[in-house]
Amino acid sequence: MSNQNHISPPHFGSDPRVRYVKVGNLIIGGGAPVVVQSMCSTDTRDVDATLAQIQRLAAAGCELVRVAVPDKKASQALRNIVKGSPLPIVADIHYHHQRALEAIAAGAAKVRVNPGNIGSRDRLKMVVESAGARRVPIRIGVNSGSLPDDILERDHFIVTPQGMVDAALREVELLDKEGFRDIVVSLKASDVKTTVEANRLFRERCDIPLHLGITEAGLKGYGSIKSAIGIGALLMQNIGETIRVSLAAEPEEEIEIAWWILEATGVRRRSPELVVCPTCGRLEIELIPLAKEVERILKEIKLPIKVAVMGCIVNGPGECRDADIGLVGGRGKGLVIRNGNMVQTVKETELLNAFRQELDGLIEGRKA
Amino acid sequence: MSNQNHISPPHFGSDPRVRYVKVGNLIIGGGAPVVVQSMCSTDTRDVDATLAQIQRLAAAGCELVRVAVPDKKASQALRNIVKGSPLPIVADIHYHHQRALEAIAAGAAKVRVNPGNIGSRDRLKMVVESAGARRVPIRIGVNSGSLPDDILERDHFIVTPQGMVDAALREVELLDKEGFRDIVVSLKASDVKTTVEANRLFRERCDIPLHLGITEAGLKGYGSIKSAIGIGALLMQNIGETIRVSLAAEPEEEIEIAWWILEATGVRRRSPELVVCPTCGRLEIELIPLAKEVERILKEIKLPIKVAVMGCIVNGPGECRDADIGLVGGRGKGLVIRNGNMVQTVKETELLNAFRQELDGLIEGRKA
Repeated sequence: MSNQNHISPPHFGSDPRVRYVKVGNLIIGGGAPVVVQSMCSTDTRDVDATLAQIQRLAAAGCELVRVAVPDKKASQALRNIVKGSPLPIVADIHYHHQRALEAIAAGAAKVRVNPGNIGSRDRLKMVVESAGARRVPIRIGVNSGSLPDDILERDHFIVTPQGMVDAALREVELLDKEGFRDIVVSLKASDVKTTVEANRLFRERCDIPLHLGITEAGLKGYGSIKSAIGIGALLMQNIGETIRVSLAAEPEEEIEIAWWILEATGVRRRSPELVVCPTCGRLEIELIPLAKEVERILKEIKLPIKVAVMGCIVNGPGECRDADIGLVGGRGKGLVIRNGNMVQTVKETELLNAFRQELDGLIEGRKA
Repeated sequence: MSNQNHISPPHFGSDPRVRYVKVGNLIIGGGAPVVVQSMCSTDTRDVDATLAQIQRLAAAGCELVRVAVPDKKASQALRNIVKGSPLPIVADIHYHHQRALEAIAAGAAKVRVNPGNIGSRDRLKMVVESAGARRVPIRIGVNSGSLPDDILERDHFIVTPQGMVDAALREVELLDKEGFRDIVVSLKASDVKTTVEANRLFRERCDIPLHLGITEAGLKGYGSIKSAIGIGALLMQNIGETIRVSLAAEPEEEIEIAWWILEATGVRRRSPELVVCPTCGRLEIELIPLAKEVERILKEIKLPIKVAVMGCIVNGPGECRDADIGLVGGRGKGLVIRNGNMVQTVKETELLNAFRQELDGLIEGRKA
């Protein structure tokens, strides 16, 4: 596929040298912003519950959602899920080419299926023809837990980054042979370093867009940290075109972490950034309650601005230099700083009101 | 300093080519395990509150703790804090060489002070002589919020990684001139990429041990993610000899995140690793309650083992191959896997009991 229709680069884009695929109204790769996705934890056959969860995911900032399609009832339900969903749907298929055909017919925008798993070349041809006719991309998913036996044996039964890449390229080749190029690849290990290295190696070899994630990351706390390190390290190397944070938690919670990772790495920004100084013995104002109030106010704002809340005079004014709005408190007084310039001195109790006032001014200014 | 007394490399060590300093009973650098530290949020003059917080920090896994020393009362209190503390104490000093001298006399194991900030070469000589006599290392701390004016001006008032490195090297040079080499350096920006790049550049130039952190990272959720990405990216490059996660939260909470970062990057491990499959529509058992029970049991165990809890037969057995103990559930049945071999098939309701039994066996085995 040529990049003839290359979209104009957004402010925060992925690597423009990576090929792209269209998934419903989304573009993955080709310099497009990194896409945030998750997976429903509902029973796909329960259309109402699944659509309700998709609505919650969309409200949280999810852009693409995957549902499991383990049986025929699920692929039948898929048609109504696709109709009712505000987001494009990815069908997650294992082994059964019939499920893949049904999911494509039902309107899935993307199918996650491994060509080597669906039984025969004839079956693969059927899936590829059907997907190709509707421009439905296929995601190949390599997990550290399910590498081919011969690769594992070659690597002495240790999951290596190279083994994962070889497994992925083998699947890619099966699609290439059928002339199918609308491919996304994921290489997920539960080990962070293995995941990072596998994706890095794959990107050296191949321009197929990468779906990033740490598999089986764990419960929310540790799982978020593992995902942040692994996905974050790759995004900072400009690797990764779509991300999923996998947690044993409600999928909406995955979305919050995913956006935090995108914002912390500077890859995408959808909302204000709040910088707060760490609490220490020099702290002269009630910083945490103030910061939480500021965070609450900023949650309603959809502008990529930077706000700093500082509790002392040592680092406060300096750190505020980079912020659109800075608040510095100490000894009953409050300073408000705009773009590095002190614009107001108020009583500490008035700091929050002064912040609202400056924020309103800033929002008006951005509209103009 | 020669590495003549080079300690034998631990299982998970930092870069042995980095010079080392002794901080109380700890070693930072020289291949020693990465040290976990935090900072008290109490008023240092309140000895009881500070010691109570240090006890909580130590119980959480903190190994080194910093306290602010803003005035003479604080440096007087420091003596009793040092006496009562189970952890070595770092005194955090700004501008006042007298505070530094008092802190060293009070038994601080390390002082965080910037030589360029304490007024004159004579004052610096006094601090360096006093620190040198007691082998108290000095940590130079460069923050993005307080770069020297001339460096900022040179870089067009943008905080750059190179500007941060230059600011640090300038401080290092002041100590070098006095023949003082027991130095730790930190380069902290609130921006993750700037922090990572500054530390990487510094390590290319210099073998001084690095204290890693993201400054003013924010409230716990987003702050943890930023810290994990920044600190994690550096640790995976084998850069960093001690870490602090800075959050606007209770300092004990920083310690939990710090350990998660060390464990996720494979740099240090103090406790079991729990791998849990993400919930999806294929889920055939009540995974989250089971995983939470397993996590609760593992909290009591101080062995670096890997446990996997899998909710379906697609990825479950494969992912369990790497685990010391794997639990796979589905359709009312449970499988227990030890080192890749299925050892028990039980009812789903018996899975937790079977896990306890295998865990006991494993612990007995490790003792032997």
